[in-house]
Amino acid sequence: MTPKVAIVGYRGYSGVELVRLLERHSRVEHVLLDHREDSGAGPAIRHQKPPHRLPCSPEAVKAEGIALVFLATPPEVSMELAPAMLGAGARVVDLSGAFRLRTPENYAAWYKEPHTQPALLAEAAYGLPEFCRESIPPARLVANPGCYPTAANLAIRPIVEAGVVDRAAGIVCDAKSGVSGAGRKPSLKTSFCEVADNFNAYSILRHRHVPEVLQVSGLAECEFSFTAHLLPLDRGILETVYFRAKGLAGAEDLLAVYERRYAGEPFLRLYNPGHFPNLRSVARTNFCDIGVALDSKTGRAVVVSAIDNLVKGAAGQAIQNMNLMLGFPETEGLL
Amino acid sequence: MTPKVAIVGYRGYSGVELVRLLERHSRVEHVLLDHREDSGAGPAIRHQKPPHRLPCSPEAVKAEGIALVFLATPPEVSMELAPAMLGAGARVVDLSGAFRLRTPENYAAWYKEPHTQPALLAEAAYGLPEFCRESIPPARLVANPGCYPTAANLAIRPIVEAGVVDRAAGIVCDAKSGVSGAGRKPSLKTSFCEVADNFNAYSILRHRHVPEVLQVSGLAECEFSFTAHLLPLDRGILETVYFRAKGLAGAEDLLAVYERRYAGEPFLRLYNPGHFPNLRSVARTNFCDIGVALDSKTGRAVVVSAIDNLVKGAAGQAIQNMNLMLGFPETEGLL
Amino acid sequence: MTPKVAIVGYRGYSGVELVRLLERHSRVEHVLLDHREDSGAGPAIRHQKPPHRLPCSPEAVKAEGIALVFLATPPEVSMELAPAMLGAGARVVDLSGAFRLRTPENYAAWYKEPHTQPALLAEAAYGLPEFCRESIPPARLVANPGCYPTAANLAIRPIVEAGVVDRAAGIVCDAKSGVSGAGRKPSLKTSFCEVADNFNAYSILRHRHVPEVLQVSGLAECEFSFTAHLLPLDRGILETVYFRAKGLAGAEDLLAVYERRYAGEPFLRLYNPGHFPNLRSVARTNFCDIGVALDSKTGRAVVVSAIDNLVKGAAGQAIQNMNLMLGFPETEGLL
Amino acid sequence: MTPKVAIVGYRGYSGVELVRLLERHSRVEHVLLDHREDSGAGPAIRHQKPPHRLPCSPEAVKAEGIALVFLATPPEVSMELAPAMLGAGARVVDLSGAFRLRTPENYAAWYKEPHTQPALLAEAAYGLPEFCRESIPPARLVANPGCYPTAANLAIRPIVEAGVVDRAAGIVCDAKSGVSGAGRKPSLKTSFCEVADNFNAYSILRHRHVPEVLQVSGLAECEFSFTAHLLPLDRGILETVYFRAKGLAGAEDLLAVYERRYAGEPFLRLYNPGHFPNLRSVARTNFCDIGVALDSKTGRAVVVSAIDNLVKGAAGQAIQNMNLMLGFPETEGLL
Repeated sequence: MTPKVAIVGYRGYSGVELVRLLERHSRVEHVLLDHREDSGAGPAIRHQKPPHRLPCSPEAVKAEGIALVFLATPPEVSMELAPAMLGAGARVVDLSGAFRLRTPENYAAWYKEPHTQPALLAEAAYGLPEFCRESIPPARLVANPGCYPTAANLAIRPIVEAGVVDRAAGIVCDAKSGVSGAGRKPSLKTSFCEVADNFNAYSILRHRHVPEVLQVSGLAECEFSFTAHLLPLDRGILETVYFRAKGLAGAEDLLAVYERRYAGEPFLRLYNPGHFPNLRSVARTNFCDIGVALDSKTGRAVVVSAIDNLVKGAAGQAIQNMNLMLGFPETEGLL
Repeated sequence: MTPKVAIVGYRGYSGVELVRLLERHSRVEHVLLDHREDSGAGPAIRHQKPPHRLPCSPEAVKAEGIALVFLATPPEVSMELAPAMLGAGARVVDLSGAFRLRTPENYAAWYKEPHTQPALLAEAAYGLPEFCRESIPPARLVANPGCYPTAANLAIRPIVEAGVVDRAAGIVCDAKSGVSGAGRKPSLKTSFCEVADNFNAYSILRHRHVPEVLQVSGLAECEFSFTAHLLPLDRGILETVYFRAKGLAGAEDLLAVYERRYAGEPFLRLYNPGHFPNLRSVARTNFCDIGVALDSKTGRAVVVSAIDNLVKGAAGQAIQNMNLMLGFPETEGLL
Repeated sequence: MTPKVAIVGYRGYSGVELVRLLERHSRVEHVLLDHREDSGAGPAIRHQKPPHRLPCSPEAVKAEGIALVFLATPPEVSMELAPAMLGAGARVVDLSGAFRLRTPENYAAWYKEPHTQPALLAEAAYGLPEFCRESIPPARLVANPGCYPTAANLAIRPIVEAGVVDRAAGIVCDAKSGVSGAGRKPSLKTSFCEVADNFNAYSILRHRHVPEVLQVSGLAECEFSFTAHLLPLDRGILETVYFRAKGLAGAEDLLAVYERRYAGEPFLRLYNPGHFPNLRSVARTNFCDIGVALDSKTGRAVVVSAIDNLVKGAAGQAIQNMNLMLGFPETEGLL
Repeated sequence: MTPKVAIVGYRGYSGVELVRLLERHSRVEHVLLDHREDSGAGPAIRHQKPPHRLPCSPEAVKAEGIALVFLATPPEVSMELAPAMLGAGARVVDLSGAFRLRTPENYAAWYKEPHTQPALLAEAAYGLPEFCRESIPPARLVANPGCYPTAANLAIRPIVEAGVVDRAAGIVCDAKSGVSGAGRKPSLKTSFCEVADNFNAYSILRHRHVPEVLQVSGLAECEFSFTAHLLPLDRGILETVYFRAKGLAGAEDLLAVYERRYAGEPFLRLYNPGHFPNLRSVARTNFCDIGVALDSKTGRAVVVSAIDNLVKGAAGQAIQNMNLMLGFPETEGLL
């Protein structure tokens, strides 16, 4: 029997992307859970079959036999819904920041509000398959990584693990994201006339995604400088990572570090020396693309990583996690 | 009598901007010099008076009594035209990279072709008024700075001068530019369908603007990592500069470094802590805007500088140099 | 003594543009009137002098001796403020739709709410100088035209007046506007991720600007089809007008109609046959540019008109009206 | 055995889209035919398998047993290659304008050069399945429709057939296209800095797609006014069609005309009254979406149609034609 999965927050950009990707997935059926009232605007397209919708209640989830719920909701809503959905017998992939950090104290420090579900926080698995593939299949609750940390950790952790970073000099990660990363709720900051023809840095040194990078990469806060920027485009994240390399003779050596670490990984693509990914390379895909440069005289190194923030940075990775949790091939519905 | 100035390359983006700005300048008349044949497309607007155009020859420049010529041309054309224009009695502001570096060897190393005018290279003044204000007024030939180096040096040199940079850790400059920086000549790289909805890094660690930054800032190459990126917008440069600060207690201390250095500077604007410039802040202006962040616990510092690449990064700064050379108020036509 | 003028709604896009243009105007001083509370965000730029602000009250307007108030406010606010400002002795240029239509009935029919100031509606002069230049100087209250109607009427009225339109076939006006026309208030419709890479028609046949076009052009509703479209860009309106020409042998004949009507007009620019304006032609200017095509075999004619919706379509035209009202040269501050 | 199909012009935007869509098609294998030399830039992505490429010669096509060739080439190249490919035993879907018009005279009049293959022109089937579904399966050579005419004819032919158009008043079609419609070859007209933040009309009344609309819709040239416009976005066409309706009481009546005509059509979607498609509705799909408005008092009617110019307007429709020619389900690979 085909398992059923459900989506809360299906009108947000991550939620819409989840629906789009699940429509191509051959091993699950999906339903929508109505968490908040919606304006009852009629359907635009004539004779279009409305999607299958249920109220977002434990009773409905139980009655429908939902195997897994995606929470594409803000952290405070996820903290409220995750225990309810788990209690109704569903497993949960949460796309918010609610369950990504390891301690309530760390959460409170970066999210500026107390964590209301410390037991679930302790239980949650971090859903970055390339580094946590063992802990995801048995988990009841998976915290889907943030978009910036996904691109950052996939670029940074292999070089930290391999010991090729001069940690005294630290790592700089200059990150640029499309506007969909800010969500669908209208605000002046994401209004067309404010964003178009414009570009700006924000949350300099204090973005709430920083602790996720530290936690996964093993860097200390003093070793890592991160700035987020807003690009005048819809989707995509590109991060430019700078460090001093130790013990590497050139770009091929640096690439070899990534090749060893990512051998067999279906969603990592490396670029030949002199080539670098751009946002179109990864748009609407679950790939993370990586290119590198290294000045052999001085050891100055640059790594560029690119993802689609709504796919590998959100909905695609959530489905990758679902595939691992439900025992499907990891790439099902994602290639 | 109102001095006459002339523009070569008036169809390029910097040239068009020069014409636009000179139309508002009350102390000079300007004429256009035709260096290459142009398609004789008729005028679009009915009864519009054609601009005053002359052939780009020493004879015409002499006959017309041109006091100063702007070369908004590629470096190889500037190397050809600069001696001719100087020979005709005009002073020259060159907007290309031809005369910015101090030695022919350095030029050859970064521009991948020999310098054909080493004597003029030795003579040329570097036209960054905030740091070279004394050498510009008497100069016959001024090398107008590159767009990236203008934003970089205005952010970096004050902190290097003040000795607040941990130079062992180096400085990272992550630079992002609008497409007009690549010039008007059609190419696939600047085609709408390749640039729109896209973002990419280029010339990583080996951009030809790097030596200008080293020359002005006093950094060694091993201390400086620079990556250029192409933004999907028309105009503007934003650079995010990372370093480890020494001897600064917080953002106010860092701001004080800039305030001291830029006291009285008409085109530098500093931002209060927590505020940062964006590209709209500086669009169509000759300002360079600077904002800073500093983590007092760890000394990690970030400086954001923004300019309009066609104004402070090209035509506006060229007029600022002209004002200094011809004895006008430095801000004439630019506020 | 320099007259003082004031702006209500100075944070909206038209208001910001008014401030920008008034800063260049040499014959008036301007102050800002605070109509609603604003979040007290501190100034971004260090040591920047805050603008001169007053409460938006009749007392303050009287005390300050304000000669003229610009209302860059929604119609319901304009209906509330116009009598108060007039009562305080100021003249008013209203940029909303409140006072543009001739009868309260017509207003109620298109704006879907009753008009609360019918006496002022009867008194107001319509501020399209090219067609109403006599009634503006003596007026106490001028209704600044809508952005779409400005471009439409400047294209349509000359050909209707000249009798060269086959009115049985009607006139089609297909209008496209940048997003700033929708105002600064955040909404999903003007969110970056909804507008970028997108294009749509709206208010088909029932846009509230239609009656302004009928009123000025003399067309009956059944003779005029109008559709508005939203362009993925910040500013600019381009309208493509279709009709069957009578008695014209070719494009030159059609141009001659406009040339006769607009002889001496400072803000109208006509294009030679085969040339047409685009939005960049008029960006940040008070011009209305017009180009025409005519198929002499069949009489099918097309007229393209372009304006900057925030300048000739709002703030620039408001200043043009102010210039007429206060006896300044009509082009002061606008060229 | 899986049939093999081949693509000439696989680097152009339509060609790239063909490759993307054929990768999802389960019933054919595809190869690339190298018609012109290409710069031998190495592959960007490491260890990526290069695509299967052959020289574009009749011998290679024969030897490989190619069943069908897509020509995504300019008309003059298509006129040269079509007979060669047919001679090698392959059937041809041509995406250029070479074989769309019925007579060499008409071709010469609109394309401004003689037609060199009049016999093939006479033989070619016009590949608009919704109106020519019978003639496509047996055809050796199918002329894939132009992008503008696809959206225009799908909007216009049903109402002309149904006799609900007041033909004396004519039909206006105001068409707007993304930049990819202009092809991949770099030119100033499609440079980012010329197109971004801009919008313009072009080829007014004399676009070479006009005769295709006349041919399919049955309108006479004097009954049809067409203007193309260039949108600052990558892909998509939206056309706004204006006419006077006869015998229709309201929008539901007009929709009923389309519903009857398009019953069972897999790629036509109609919108409920008050709803209209936008470009995002159809991006990356083979749908043509249609919405309508009708003023019942005056008969003024507006129809909005939208397609993705690279899919239903080029590569998608070419595959739809291939499906018909090779006996596959019409929607294979396209939903």
